[in-house]
Amino acid sequence: MPTITSVEVVDVRFPTSLTADGSDAMNKDGDYSAAYVILNTDAEDIAGYGFTFTIGRGNDICTLAAQQRALPLIGRDVDELLDDLGATYRELKSDSQLRWLGPEKGVEHLAMAAVMNALWDMAARRAGKPLWQLLAEMTPAQLVDVADLQYLSDVLTREEALQMLTAMEPTRGERIAQLKNDGYPCYTTSAGWLGYSDEKLRRLCQEAVDSGYRHIKLKVGANLADDIRRCSIAREVIGQDANLMIDANQVWDVPEAIEWVNALSQFRPMWIEEPTSPDDVLGHAAIRRAVAPIGVATGEHGMNRVLFKQMFQAEAIDFCQLDAARLASINEILAVYLMAKKFGVPVCPHAGGVGLCELVQHLSIFDFVAISGSLENRVTEYVDHLHEHFVDPCVVQNGAYVLPSMPGYSARMHESTLEEFAYPNGTFWIGRRELAE
Amino acid sequence: MPTITSVEVVDVRFPTSLTADGSDAMNKDGDYSAAYVILNTDAEDIAGYGFTFTIGRGNDICTLAAQQRALPLIGRDVDELLDDLGATYRELKSDSQLRWLGPEKGVEHLAMAAVMNALWDMAARRAGKPLWQLLAEMTPAQLVDVADLQYLSDVLTREEALQMLTAMEPTRGERIAQLKNDGYPCYTTSAGWLGYSDEKLRRLCQEAVDSGYRHIKLKVGANLADDIRRCSIAREVIGQDANLMIDANQVWDVPEAIEWVNALSQFRPMWIEEPTSPDDVLGHAAIRRAVAPIGVATGEHGMNRVLFKQMFQAEAIDFCQLDAARLASINEILAVYLMAKKFGVPVCPHAGGVGLCELVQHLSIFDFVAISGSLENRVTEYVDHLHEHFVDPCVVQNGAYVLPSMPGYSARMHESTLEEFAYPNGTFWIGRRELAE
Repeated sequence: MPTITSVEVVDVRFPTSLTADGSDAMNKDGDYSAAYVILNTDAEDIAGYGFTFTIGRGNDICTLAAQQRALPLIGRDVDELLDDLGATYRELKSDSQLRWLGPEKGVEHLAMAAVMNALWDMAARRAGKPLWQLLAEMTPAQLVDVADLQYLSDVLTREEALQMLTAMEPTRGERIAQLKNDGYPCYTTSAGWLGYSDEKLRRLCQEAVDSGYRHIKLKVGANLADDIRRCSIAREVIGQDANLMIDANQVWDVPEAIEWVNALSQFRPMWIEEPTSPDDVLGHAAIRRAVAPIGVATGEHGMNRVLFKQMFQAEAIDFCQLDAARLASINEILAVYLMAKKFGVPVCPHAGGVGLCELVQHLSIFDFVAISGSLENRVTEYVDHLHEHFVDPCVVQNGAYVLPSMPGYSARMHESTLEEFAYPNGTFWIGRRELAE
Repeated sequence: MPTITSVEVVDVRFPTSLTADGSDAMNKDGDYSAAYVILNTDAEDIAGYGFTFTIGRGNDICTLAAQQRALPLIGRDVDELLDDLGATYRELKSDSQLRWLGPEKGVEHLAMAAVMNALWDMAARRAGKPLWQLLAEMTPAQLVDVADLQYLSDVLTREEALQMLTAMEPTRGERIAQLKNDGYPCYTTSAGWLGYSDEKLRRLCQEAVDSGYRHIKLKVGANLADDIRRCSIAREVIGQDANLMIDANQVWDVPEAIEWVNALSQFRPMWIEEPTSPDDVLGHAAIRRAVAPIGVATGEHGMNRVLFKQMFQAEAIDFCQLDAARLASINEILAVYLMAKKFGVPVCPHAGGVGLCELVQHLSIFDFVAISGSLENRVTEYVDHLHEHFVDPCVVQNGAYVLPSMPGYSARMHESTLEEFAYPNGTFWIGRRELAE
């Protein structure tokens, strides 16, 4: 009967602002960071690792919030917690005093994601399976039991969820075999950060094409003339048949978004991502109507399942870009995938940052195997940096994620990474703290 | 040239859970708390006091977030900061690393509210006027300059805002005179907390009627039979002509809300408050259509102006209950009031907690004087507890707020309160910390 003996939460920050990696129209100087949760047990071979992702300042606030959220786990029986992760999730989220600080949004929800991610990681490690496989071997009833369907019954009942999962169950094995062969398709954002020069953009687009990518994403929204020049360069390099996506990172009001995106329509973007406030369901719906056939995508700041419910109800988006460290882990993510299936919206998870690629590969694989059963219009983000800090880094070949095989949620960082990048006392940050402030 | 010399943020908690004050279907044991901001200057007579409200655990997280948010103010020129509170607000909210933790929601937004509330308090103190008067003496252009209209231009342009304010400007004085005579009408929630016995409920309803209240609010949503019995008692005491409001504190899904509220329709509630998730614009719209003529009210958890914009666009609410410590102070609240005016929705601010009544009286007065010009269907919440901790407590007579006359936003707490209820080292909490955990 192993028990959880302690919780450590480490504030880990990488100095990415030094190279303009991750720069866009809203976020000019992010230091990619993680509030990194370690759940220790008294069994030598069982632990759980999870995190939420931030871009620097305030990571300490998420760290504190995750510590508090995880407190009720200390001293608890591991099997009891993991055998019913639906009950564990409901217990953790039931703290009504903490609920006031959201509810289910912002720092407290990021912290909930970090803690639940660590618990799901531990469940997969205990089972000796990668998380996608643990999920793919759960029955439809087990999956519905862990999904958070609160506030969703006007669009998705438990019975509908069960039916959708049951219909896909007999053919799960075929799709696993397919993915083992081909991998799960991804696209790259590494080429198009706003802070890069035209020369670097051109070179990175060419490298992406050479590596087998069929989708390239550029950041836009700071200056229209620059955007037109950069989109021209990208189209020139990738040709007319590859897919170009553009991402404005929330800088526009609704009327401005419509005008700006239509001014870029000559480059035939597959989607405009985050055209306005991530909270604006009706705004996204208006933009979508006005810029068709360009698709509308959002979700990396999609705060919770209630927001996504409305995005689907209002026919506001063509692509759902949920975030593995902003939604409250598998429990809430499952609910969003089930709604997306019902409304016929493809889910193309947000990734990049630090560690998000490691997480979302499991989600996309599981979605194809057990929920959507389709790869049509589905492509998962991939950004090529910071993977070296993970014990089980994601592997991309020919523009596709290779199926992870190690037990867990691929969330564990190297000890040496924690020693170097823990903030403010890691070996990198000692004497350099002013870089982040 | 006074400058801001330091920022203190105090974690203040009151042990309200001991008496079930504030108990409802979602929040069973709140300890009313404030992350309380003090901005000190090198001028002897200038300081600013503000706070955000929470219900206990996590108040330390808000305290930390407010400290960080206020850091850029230290060493700054007071006049420069206060002469353009629009620019000051935009500067504070422009930190893109902190923005990731929201954006504009949850802990970070509560912290922003606390800091900006302190700045507005300081501005009113510097002018030697109560805040409502400072606002009521600003020109339409000055008001529009401080309002945060980002993401709102699809429903409200700067020009429309200016026109609405300009139209009401010549008659501001008449309405001030009217309120000085009559006060601003309020209602009481003190009678109806869910944890109170039937006898206490009956007695408190009678006391409310005797004190001149024409509106009484009851908490509902835990058990339908209990709700029917409690509504019967309330109607029996207050009679058929007084107004009864009911408040479910977000416990229902949409279909359940419709069923439950219609089962209470015999008691002719004026509104159902927080029937479901505060984020669910389309859910509130569906509930509103299904329970009419019972009104739908929400807003105390309304996270930001973009949510309220959609509530108005979707015709989701009959009453807007914005919160003075959850929205980012006057800058964002002004924008919500202006949209409410355009859409013809009365604003009845949420209050209670600790200190919210002290704040919202200024908002309601200013709204009547300079924006709405109407008292129709408008009544502001009042809860009779914890006022003794404030230097300038609100005063209610004959069911109406008496206009505050002391300079400031009425947000300053007594030194003795901070000494007693600072958490965890105030004199009350020493040796009693386990009460809150």
